[in-house]
Amino acid sequence: MTRTLHLNAFLMGVGHHEAAWRHPLTSAPDALTAAHYVRLGQIAERGLLDSVFFADGLAVGPNVHRNTQAVFEPITLLTAIAGATNHVGLIATASTTYNEPYTLARAFASLDRISGGRAGWNIVTSGSDEEAANYGYDRAPVHAGRYGRATEFLDVALTLWDSWEPDAVELDAEAGVFADPAKVHPAEHVGEHFSVAGALNVPGSPQGRPVLVQAGSSESGKEFAAQYAEAVFTAQRTLAEGQEFYADLKGRLAAYGRSPDDLAVLPGIVPFIADTAEEARALEQEFTDLISPDYALRQLSRMLGIDLTDHPLDAPLPPLPTIDRIEGNKSRYQLVRDLAEGEQLTVRELIGRLGGGRGHRTFAGTPEQVADEIQAWFEGGSADGFNVMPPYLPGGLEVFVDRVVPILQQRGLFRTSYSGSTLRENLGLRPHVNRYTEPAAAARASG
Amino acid sequence: MTRTLHLNAFLMGVGHHEAAWRHPLTSAPDALTAAHYVRLGQIAERGLLDSVFFADGLAVGPNVHRNTQAVFEPITLLTAIAGATNHVGLIATASTTYNEPYTLARAFASLDRISGGRAGWNIVTSGSDEEAANYGYDRAPVHAGRYGRATEFLDVALTLWDSWEPDAVELDAEAGVFADPAKVHPAEHVGEHFSVAGALNVPGSPQGRPVLVQAGSSESGKEFAAQYAEAVFTAQRTLAEGQEFYADLKGRLAAYGRSPDDLAVLPGIVPFIADTAEEARALEQEFTDLISPDYALRQLSRMLGIDLTDHPLDAPLPPLPTIDRIEGNKSRYQLVRDLAEGEQLTVRELIGRLGGGRGHRTFAGTPEQVADEIQAWFEGGSADGFNVMPPYLPGGLEVFVDRVVPILQQRGLFRTSYSGSTLRENLGLRPHVNRYTEPAAAARASG
Repeated sequence: MTRTLHLNAFLMGVGHHEAAWRHPLTSAPDALTAAHYVRLGQIAERGLLDSVFFADGLAVGPNVHRNTQAVFEPITLLTAIAGATNHVGLIATASTTYNEPYTLARAFASLDRISGGRAGWNIVTSGSDEEAANYGYDRAPVHAGRYGRATEFLDVALTLWDSWEPDAVELDAEAGVFADPAKVHPAEHVGEHFSVAGALNVPGSPQGRPVLVQAGSSESGKEFAAQYAEAVFTAQRTLAEGQEFYADLKGRLAAYGRSPDDLAVLPGIVPFIADTAEEARALEQEFTDLISPDYALRQLSRMLGIDLTDHPLDAPLPPLPTIDRIEGNKSRYQLVRDLAEGEQLTVRELIGRLGGGRGHRTFAGTPEQVADEIQAWFEGGSADGFNVMPPYLPGGLEVFVDRVVPILQQRGLFRTSYSGSTLRENLGLRPHVNRYTEPAAAARASG
Repeated sequence: MTRTLHLNAFLMGVGHHEAAWRHPLTSAPDALTAAHYVRLGQIAERGLLDSVFFADGLAVGPNVHRNTQAVFEPITLLTAIAGATNHVGLIATASTTYNEPYTLARAFASLDRISGGRAGWNIVTSGSDEEAANYGYDRAPVHAGRYGRATEFLDVALTLWDSWEPDAVELDAEAGVFADPAKVHPAEHVGEHFSVAGALNVPGSPQGRPVLVQAGSSESGKEFAAQYAEAVFTAQRTLAEGQEFYADLKGRLAAYGRSPDDLAVLPGIVPFIADTAEEARALEQEFTDLISPDYALRQLSRMLGIDLTDHPLDAPLPPLPTIDRIEGNKSRYQLVRDLAEGEQLTVRELIGRLGGGRGHRTFAGTPEQVADEIQAWFEGGSADGFNVMPPYLPGGLEVFVDRVVPILQQRGLFRTSYSGSTLRENLGLRPHVNRYTEPAAAARASG
């Protein structure tokens, strides 16, 4: 089978660029309406993209006066999109630190049933103190502890999703038998963080379980991804960095009995697209010029774990804490630090470089140039596809779908119709094997 | 203003009657598809009903081989219905014992935004040991403890829903101001069960907060309802019992600074409807004849807190535990006990009487007779409307909507078009008053 690209639309408010909502190409009130996101889902499906995706956080954060992003809870929003689409995958971020596995496994199984098998879960461990303070803690649990809980959470969730064998439901009205109790398996989990007795109260789902997605690139994050993830959203900025990450992550899969094809690596790209390269760069500059330095300084302070709000904009960065002092998002810290130090950027320059996608790669060019870049990474061992982060919405997604996708199709790199009915099928992943139906196969698949 | 009826459609699988899925009027596989529930939502809206409602439990329960009911998680399912309807209210059951207030307040705010202000929350405290065992407990927390947590949970949720003043969002793109931080209020809650620092990360919702619904009829349940609930689903079986409950509950509101109109009392009714009373009774008997005694005995054993599975079907009930020994659903226990003892029923007779609606009132008659009953309760001081529990679905809802609703409309008892755009408006409730916008009014409204 020919290897083909996988494309996910990462949707955020009226665009990923932090100043998108101030630009005339967007309408800021859109961010507050479900209809906007439903429309984005339909545009992504028109472009045959594998999936749409929402990030998430469990707090308002310190920038309420600038923040256009936290409006809807992702699982409900994706359920709304499910009803207005038929093929596109629906990936919601949810936390293992502040949820219970029974509740979350059930919500995803419900979304998977409602959408006909299109659910995906982007697994996060919620590193911020603001989130912790909404759930009874003074500070976020330490990084290692969050991943310990996440691992047990996944074990429980996977057990619950398998709890109904695919043919457990008999619906024999004459005999009065709804399901065969011998094919419904209690979880019987007793662990460090969770005790969960029962079978899930959703009788199976079209994909068997949602597609598992992960985005952390710390050591713990990469090991977690190698063990569980079927797609990884990542943030490499150069082809060489992409190659290194790709080889590193794919190389870790064998230890868990998995093959490199069991996981798709999808770097983020923030594309500014126009008829000429010059116009594309000018468009990007328009957005950069709308950045509010005070907002950007607060965001940067959070990423780097130091207070930069009084730091002069045209000076270089002050000395940064070492990575072992970072308890939040370690991979994003390393990326920003490498960018600033590698190119000796001033604070103002760094803010401009981060404005498009908070560290994800921004690329300004013609549709052909964007397609060339995607192809170069895909064929160069850096990516199995891309996590497309339109800088403004809906226009930035429309121009990608209407002008870049056709070029990728002409080159034979991207599908011309949906081949499967589930997200798992469209991502080219193997069917999920229920551990009770085929215990040996399931053991091989899960390592 | 003329007082008018409020009607809610309580939806469950392919019908409330426990044998519904075995009867030729239903198609059992419907219960497994979201499309079935979406269709039911559309039928309810065609009949101008105030709302549709799903009960919920957080475990499979002991009757997996008979249980057709636990398939979807209610908030996601109602979100799917939201997209296919425009007016009907959407009431989801959710537990205060096994959720976190920040998470649940956010999910309901998200559903309220997605549906344009149609969300309602049926507040339950989850009394079963099976549910407890899925959340790290050996047994359910005791009744009083669950209500203590529920009260604090409500205080936090109400604070979070008020955290954005209605005009907090400015969306001033030119100035770069999304919201006015002075109008976004952190919860700053520190209590016995919860510590919640932040403002909610959903900026307000059309109703200000979801409509609050409650169903427990124990002493704690009635006090809780008097303090918080705006609609109560209840299970009285005679007009006199209904009058007593109605007067009791309405009389408790003043202590919380509320007026009788701030809460709608909606008893359950399971209507078997046919052209003649004889045909309606014959229809009911068809369903009764399909009941599986072993399933019914397990359900009855759970309700009464004793093991009846080996008890002879044609003998009277054995001595029952006293109500203070019941830690689960106290009000349902009392209702079943009163029914069995009052009419000196055998176990088999009791099972038949409970089969339609697990203790809710079953009524077989013509459309006129059903309308007469509803009118008698409504005008007799027993009800502000009804929680309609169709014994089979979708047919039992269609016949109610198409044949009973027009009679109620002709009599001037029920709306002929939706008057409001939100559930709160259609229920005739006062607009929600944000505590920060009008502190004095909010203090009066919440007692």
